[in-house]
Amino acid sequence: VDERTGLPIVGMIGAGQLARMTHQAAIGLGQSLRVLAADRSDAAALVAAEVEIGAADDLVALQRFSKGCDVVTFDHEHVPGDHIRALAAAGVSVHPSADALRYAQDKHAMRHRLEQLGVPVPAWRRVNTQAEIVEFADGAGWPVVLKAVRGGYDGRGVWMVDDPQQAQQVLAAQSAAGGELLVEQRVSLRRELAVQLARSPFGQVAVYPVVETVQVDGICVQVLAPAPDLPDDTAVEIAQLAIRLATELDVVGLLTVELFDTPDGILVNELAMRPHNSGHWSIEGARTSQFEQHLRAVLDYPLGPCELTAPAVVMVNLLGPEQEGGQSIDERLHHLFAAEPGVKVHLYGKRPRPGRKIGHLTALGEDLATVRARAERAATILREGTQ
Amino acid sequence: VDERTGLPIVGMIGAGQLARMTHQAAIGLGQSLRVLAADRSDAAALVAAEVEIGAADDLVALQRFSKGCDVVTFDHEHVPGDHIRALAAAGVSVHPSADALRYAQDKHAMRHRLEQLGVPVPAWRRVNTQAEIVEFADGAGWPVVLKAVRGGYDGRGVWMVDDPQQAQQVLAAQSAAGGELLVEQRVSLRRELAVQLARSPFGQVAVYPVVETVQVDGICVQVLAPAPDLPDDTAVEIAQLAIRLATELDVVGLLTVELFDTPDGILVNELAMRPHNSGHWSIEGARTSQFEQHLRAVLDYPLGPCELTAPAVVMVNLLGPEQEGGQSIDERLHHLFAAEPGVKVHLYGKRPRPGRKIGHLTALGEDLATVRARAERAATILREGTQ
Repeated sequence: VDERTGLPIVGMIGAGQLARMTHQAAIGLGQSLRVLAADRSDAAALVAAEVEIGAADDLVALQRFSKGCDVVTFDHEHVPGDHIRALAAAGVSVHPSADALRYAQDKHAMRHRLEQLGVPVPAWRRVNTQAEIVEFADGAGWPVVLKAVRGGYDGRGVWMVDDPQQAQQVLAAQSAAGGELLVEQRVSLRRELAVQLARSPFGQVAVYPVVETVQVDGICVQVLAPAPDLPDDTAVEIAQLAIRLATELDVVGLLTVELFDTPDGILVNELAMRPHNSGHWSIEGARTSQFEQHLRAVLDYPLGPCELTAPAVVMVNLLGPEQEGGQSIDERLHHLFAAEPGVKVHLYGKRPRPGRKIGHLTALGEDLATVRARAERAATILREGTQ
Repeated sequence: VDERTGLPIVGMIGAGQLARMTHQAAIGLGQSLRVLAADRSDAAALVAAEVEIGAADDLVALQRFSKGCDVVTFDHEHVPGDHIRALAAAGVSVHPSADALRYAQDKHAMRHRLEQLGVPVPAWRRVNTQAEIVEFADGAGWPVVLKAVRGGYDGRGVWMVDDPQQAQQVLAAQSAAGGELLVEQRVSLRRELAVQLARSPFGQVAVYPVVETVQVDGICVQVLAPAPDLPDDTAVEIAQLAIRLATELDVVGLLTVELFDTPDGILVNELAMRPHNSGHWSIEGARTSQFEQHLRAVLDYPLGPCELTAPAVVMVNLLGPEQEGGQSIDERLHHLFAAEPGVKVHLYGKRPRPGRKIGHLTALGEDLATVRARAERAATILREGTQ
């Protein structure tokens, strides 16, 4: 407890944009998020009062950081499970636990556990050799998807391979780096969906509406909330699935379940146990933002309502300018606000570089097509300028 | 401009809750508010990354602080006008200017200027002696209101006096402290209202809906947005008055106009040129919060829409526990969220003390009576606990 305020201290390992936006939410709750940053220029380190510098895989740094925190939680999945167990054994309250987080860190463990639970997932197997990949693909059909078992995010650690030769190239590179792989059927999908919930140590659960995540080259570029044209019974089925997973895996904090919407039904693609890009829309678009909800969950506060604040909410990720030079980011922001004054902008304090995710924006209103057009127009101004 | 982000640096003199919430808004705009704090434990100093310690009336501290800021603005009215002029003369971009801010710092200057502009204000005069007060009161009728010309806020610097003897007591105490007074007719009013707008250097203006401010003992305890049962033509008249004042006084940033709603029409009571308690509802209740709007205004960004996000929004100020001891503030927050999970809480990082304003909360929904009851129930839990 912070003696100055009588309120709890939450420490977050990692200081990227998720920690940055969690700090914003913490301020409202009377707190000041404590962050363990890899670097002074990390997105959250630029704006938080209490910043420690240290590596997320350095146990000594983690132990020092955890001292005085009422709860420790995560901005990313890169903290080794054994380190988390060591903190917990020393009495630190860590949420989610190492046992839960494992299923967001290790795709093999996740796929295996989901199958045990009878949850539909794409066909997959763990592979060590080209022959195993070819054997799998001969059954499932080329192309197939190779995935790094650990460490992938934002389209990294995922490779679409068309033939045995491409498969061998990925395998060789990954083996050289000590990385394990699994191969997965390339699912024929209509679209990608995601559902997010929060769960408290007490076991209370609050589920957000199912959203559609629009992907380009394996990277989420837009989120539509709620997912358009989703049958009610499918939405209920997905919410029940998420609640069951959170409970079975004993998740505390946020859980995001990324889904494939296929002609044959819903498949689970990925799990994340932290604030997630697919939930950024909730800052303005839901009565409780995912960031406040995560804090409430890990602190065992009663959770907030997840209902939408408008019929249609669209989040667009902001990528850095297409080329260096031209209008500055500040000039572009002027033009953006002139064109779309009601769009809500969230910049992460990152130096703009072509293709770099420097922020996101959210638009909301009555009609999805209109809202989406506004959001896209605003994002285009930031990316391309106005000449 | 911050070299790390390419975005402007706004400095705020003063580090209370207004700076704290402005920092939250600045984070979204890719910035990190720089604050000049009187003390490390100030509300904004607890949560901001860039904190300088210094007094708001120390010109050297102000000059040092202003270096590297693209714009300097204010959390309070306590910066001497000559200091602001010295900064501006040295090339610092300060908003609002000393010439505008004067009318929020000096009630005599404000009343005098409003009269020149033909704006209706309560009957008043500047007084130095008991005889002058008695003479005024013999005309206007007892009781009368005495006000400190400078430095009053939140019910301080305002005295209701019933007779010449009470008047003499206030006069003696103020004269001993070197403070000037004015006397004012005690207006028979139906209620108090407020209107807030933002104005940019370019001259763009964005006006929020008129709100009702519920006062107890001269302190604002609740704000109802929009003001219930306000005739449309009165709302328009008030908005036009505010725009005229902002333009005539050349305000840049936020302007709040506090008003008396009397049987004989609308009178102007006070002006403020910074984020204001009567606008806290806008964080969740308006499409653009007053804090983001203030930043957009002082940076000459196009302003955001002021429309409500729900038909009824109620803000309640949170006062510290009625007595020391009992449930901790953290326990009370648990109970508050259990009873009213959808109420949005903003705590300012202040150690709770009886009667101290430690935060505010906002509820919103379809129906004012229901929303207000929810907000009051939640505030009562924080103030009294749950036994």
